[in-house]
Amino acid sequence: MPNQHARTPDAPVDGASGRIRISVDAMGGDRGPQAVVAGMAAAAAELSDIDFILHGPEPELARLVAGHRGLAERTRLRHCEGVVTMQDKPSQVVRNGAGTSMWSAIESVREREATVAVSCGNTGALMAVSMIRLRKLPGVNRPAIACLWPSRGTGRFNVMLDVGADIRADAEDLLQYALMGAAYARNGLGLTRPRVGLLNVGTEEHKGRAELREAQDRIAAMTETGGFDYVGFVEGSDLPSADVDVIVTDGFTGNVALKTGEGTARLIGEFLREALTSSLPARLGALLAGRALGRLRARIDPRRVNGGVFLGLNGTVVKSHGAADATGVAAALRLAHALAKSGYQDRLAARVASAALSGQDGARQETAHGASP
Amino acid sequence: MPNQHARTPDAPVDGASGRIRISVDAMGGDRGPQAVVAGMAAAAAELSDIDFILHGPEPELARLVAGHRGLAERTRLRHCEGVVTMQDKPSQVVRNGAGTSMWSAIESVREREATVAVSCGNTGALMAVSMIRLRKLPGVNRPAIACLWPSRGTGRFNVMLDVGADIRADAEDLLQYALMGAAYARNGLGLTRPRVGLLNVGTEEHKGRAELREAQDRIAAMTETGGFDYVGFVEGSDLPSADVDVIVTDGFTGNVALKTGEGTARLIGEFLREALTSSLPARLGALLAGRALGRLRARIDPRRVNGGVFLGLNGTVVKSHGAADATGVAAALRLAHALAKSGYQDRLAARVASAALSGQDGARQETAHGASP
Repeated sequence: MPNQHARTPDAPVDGASGRIRISVDAMGGDRGPQAVVAGMAAAAAELSDIDFILHGPEPELARLVAGHRGLAERTRLRHCEGVVTMQDKPSQVVRNGAGTSMWSAIESVREREATVAVSCGNTGALMAVSMIRLRKLPGVNRPAIACLWPSRGTGRFNVMLDVGADIRADAEDLLQYALMGAAYARNGLGLTRPRVGLLNVGTEEHKGRAELREAQDRIAAMTETGGFDYVGFVEGSDLPSADVDVIVTDGFTGNVALKTGEGTARLIGEFLREALTSSLPARLGALLAGRALGRLRARIDPRRVNGGVFLGLNGTVVKSHGAADATGVAAALRLAHALAKSGYQDRLAARVASAALSGQDGARQETAHGASP
Repeated sequence: MPNQHARTPDAPVDGASGRIRISVDAMGGDRGPQAVVAGMAAAAAELSDIDFILHGPEPELARLVAGHRGLAERTRLRHCEGVVTMQDKPSQVVRNGAGTSMWSAIESVREREATVAVSCGNTGALMAVSMIRLRKLPGVNRPAIACLWPSRGTGRFNVMLDVGADIRADAEDLLQYALMGAAYARNGLGLTRPRVGLLNVGTEEHKGRAELREAQDRIAAMTETGGFDYVGFVEGSDLPSADVDVIVTDGFTGNVALKTGEGTARLIGEFLREALTSSLPARLGALLAGRALGRLRARIDPRRVNGGVFLGLNGTVVKSHGAADATGVAAALRLAHALAKSGYQDRLAARVASAALSGQDGARQETAHGASP
């Protein structure tokens, strides 16, 4: 196939049928294909226009899918024997991974059979396969992984990126993360003009590493072209802030912050459970407050915001937690569905490419591309 | 005074009287000297052997101290007019700060009138003044700030460092942080052989930045000399783990992680309050479970573990949160008291100096210094 990565972003393949088709890697998660198929069933029950292409060993998958009423009609199976494990090194998978379910799931997006791919597998391998098969968007140096973060704001979620695609990021990379994160917030969260902040150890202008001060200047100069506002440096305590929508950082810091936040939420959840079973009055109280506590649990449950999105590629990939259960997989599929439906990928491509072209002069030509929200 | 920073660590000045004397900066916190003096009164009510030297404007402080019964008898006032604000740059304070309450509070430790200094003021300025007045311990390149982190373990707290003394750390610095953190855990938390982990984006050997892999090898080679165990790479989700006591990282990552954890705890606290006031049954339930919920609140209250400790200097300095109220100040004073009482500073000096001397050959001569727990 000549000229394979110069394919221009056109209408999503599903446009005609009105159906949203998601490519799903059944294998490689800690809980096996049962959890993935159960998550698909949950998402299908909720979203009437979602269909699946499911990649993995056909006999086993056919049996699992048949266990959920109505799921087989909405699922195409794509047989593959190979499985990428959590121990496989990305470089090995790139060389030898062509027969795996992960590779096959990405291939469906490359071939535009599906709009978005979802996998619970090895993050490094998934990023490596996505990079070589989907290729980077024109103008992007480093792709990034974006996650959602519970927020006090009306949007209920903030976006943070990069949370682990790469452990390094220079000022130029951070600028691109700002552009990609703003596009994601516009399309994934429906925000007209997202507010972008840069993660640092203090909000004062003179603080932090040199590349952060350089990135600050470049991001501030790009607000018109990128269609966002820049709110300055933010701190770790601002991740749930109502005053920012997109938090930009390097993948090392972002990964530590994400896992620290998740670990803290899990710890407090355990302490809460202990407290509410520690005495008879506490148990009675917990019973009475049961519905309110259930809503709280759902609000802070990391599984509910499950799904890192790979940004900066010719195609959208959602990485679900390796340990995701059916609830977690369903959340990742809902996110994939929302992104596919918004046409996010095509708008992102247009915006990043034209921002890269316009450079720092802030030329407005990209608004003519129809990259408005 | 000749040879001022070669003073050898001898017995704490308070040894003879059996009293623990803490030097307190009354000014520079967000809530002013009222909160500081109220915190002193709370600590004094609990700790019968604590005394204070209080630095700030004498007339105002005398009035505030007189408002708490019995506090005046245990407090010496040290008049100073100047105040370091949160906006002052560290370099300015080093040049012009000699008349400030912060400077004076550090001076009391330098003169060995007090064992530990406590301040709610500007962190950067406090570190800069501490560096030039107390000087670094022999063998230390970069001092660090250590914080306590709620843990699942029996110790109830883990130590993390650096959380913001410096935004850079190379492999040698990370090794020194491991030694200093282990000494702190031994003396501040009473652990015989602390388990040290290195913060990274994954636990696999090949992950992370090059300096982390180098630091890993050097820390692993120093376990005998340093009197600790090395447990390998840990992730953000492991900060409350029962399988590690001391988490080593650079000051940028550590600061983001600390503030992310605090911010997450605060967010969940707000969500919990909302949930428990959202309906009549929830309110009744909260009433019944009131005592258990109160214990939970105390357990996750960031004010309770208030106090970053500056490690690697000839003298101990506890940095309280700028926004600390009386509860927060009291927690910082309790921590200062515990460290003074353990003779921690003198043991740390002996251990770090001899680890630096012994280098990587793992010579055991330092155990002859009596640096055992």
